[in-house]
Amino acid sequence: MNPLENIRIVLVEPQSSGNIGSVCRVMKNMGITDLALINPHERHDWEEARRLACHAGDLLNARKVFPSLEKTVADCTVVAGTSARTGLHRDHAGLPREIAPIILDSAAYHKTALVFGREDTGLTKEELAVCTHIINIPSSKAYQSLNLSHAVMVCCYELFLLAADSSYQPPRERSPETSVEMRERVYERWSQMMIKTEFCAPEKLEHMMLGLRRIFSRGKLTDNDARILLGLAQQSLWVVDQWKKRKESSEPPI
Amino acid sequence: MNPLENIRIVLVEPQSSGNIGSVCRVMKNMGITDLALINPHERHDWEEARRLACHAGDLLNARKVFPSLEKTVADCTVVAGTSARTGLHRDHAGLPREIAPIILDSAAYHKTALVFGREDTGLTKEELAVCTHIINIPSSKAYQSLNLSHAVMVCCYELFLLAADSSYQPPRERSPETSVEMRERVYERWSQMMIKTEFCAPEKLEHMMLGLRRIFSRGKLTDNDARILLGLAQQSLWVVDQWKKRKESSEPPI
Repeated sequence: MNPLENIRIVLVEPQSSGNIGSVCRVMKNMGITDLALINPHERHDWEEARRLACHAGDLLNARKVFPSLEKTVADCTVVAGTSARTGLHRDHAGLPREIAPIILDSAAYHKTALVFGREDTGLTKEELAVCTHIINIPSSKAYQSLNLSHAVMVCCYELFLLAADSSYQPPRERSPETSVEMRERVYERWSQMMIKTEFCAPEKLEHMMLGLRRIFSRGKLTDNDARILLGLAQQSLWVVDQWKKRKESSEPPI
Repeated sequence: MNPLENIRIVLVEPQSSGNIGSVCRVMKNMGITDLALINPHERHDWEEARRLACHAGDLLNARKVFPSLEKTVADCTVVAGTSARTGLHRDHAGLPREIAPIILDSAAYHKTALVFGREDTGLTKEELAVCTHIINIPSSKAYQSLNLSHAVMVCCYELFLLAADSSYQPPRERSPETSVEMRERVYERWSQMMIKTEFCAPEKLEHMMLGLRRIFSRGKLTDNDARILLGLAQQSLWVVDQWKKRKESSEPPI
């Protein structure tokens, strides 16, 4: 299967109708067809979007709408979010050219997603946490903020070039990568484990979980891996239960 | 000197005011500042252009306007034109990533230009002839035509990446490259030579000259090279004159 067909472009709460249309054009130019919008607002001028989509009106019509990023990418393996900010994610962020082979390798077998934030404020911390990879588009210090459709262009261009490169061969897959849905179940169970085992104070949990998300996103995570991680947390939680029960029964009655 | 400062973005008869503004934004995002417009029409909505330029209004204000491509790039060495068409130029066209080092190598020492045609019809045959290199931006067969600002984005992105790559070193220049103005003088003199020496029928001249332009654009042409080529044609024309005079004087009077 053509890996480009397994790549979903996700726009989170896009503000400009024209940008949505321009993104459709960029996608069709670069052989990518799956568009998802998260919470597009009601005042969108779809005629304006259609005008800027030009001959990519079919992609605009076929857009899917979702209420949250987690729901949008539930069936995806690799989820690459774009961010201009550095900070927490600096060490994990990669150039579009570095992340493109990771997306394409996975897209040969699975749904993958490229996520673009709001025109003004980008992606939230919570949305970035759902992403397995962060893309940082290089730009001049004189003016760093790219127009939404230009950011999509750069990422799609790198993917299109790589897919068209006759020397590129996706790796032979050994075991299937796990989906965002399964990953999120792992992270939820692990959060419970962190708190209940008293490994981590509640106010430190968010930071700790971001670190763990990064660790588990660095390489591929298969369904088997996810089941092991789930089981491990499950077992920990069972031990905590036993311990609490024993503690209660050994305490003298009040 | 920063080679990006020696790169001029040339828009030939742009039709959409919004596109001009979007191109300014792309340029500033990618560290390129020199914008030239050829024959912008009088009905342009400069407020619309300014809106889309966002924080790159300074580039829009500093735009230069020219009446022809030849005048716009007279001081440039490498002139890379973008074309979606193949045909005559197919063998000479390169990908943005292939042409970027050629532009940047020259921009370390000289003015260079990246030329983008009209939104609907691109560059004319005559304009492509002025270009020393042709860039072909890869795109999907499903929809090949890129929006103007997206085409500029792809080319500028490749140049910005290359310029920012710490392993990139422009070549040490040995002798200065010649300008478009000097090249055009060579081609004009050679056209006369072709006709006067009866090497080429007038109706075949255009095709022949395109071939010669390609030959002389393949590598660098220095000022010295250009002077040699000019001299060679000059000498040929002198010989033709002598021959014609002799022919006339040896013909019997009517």
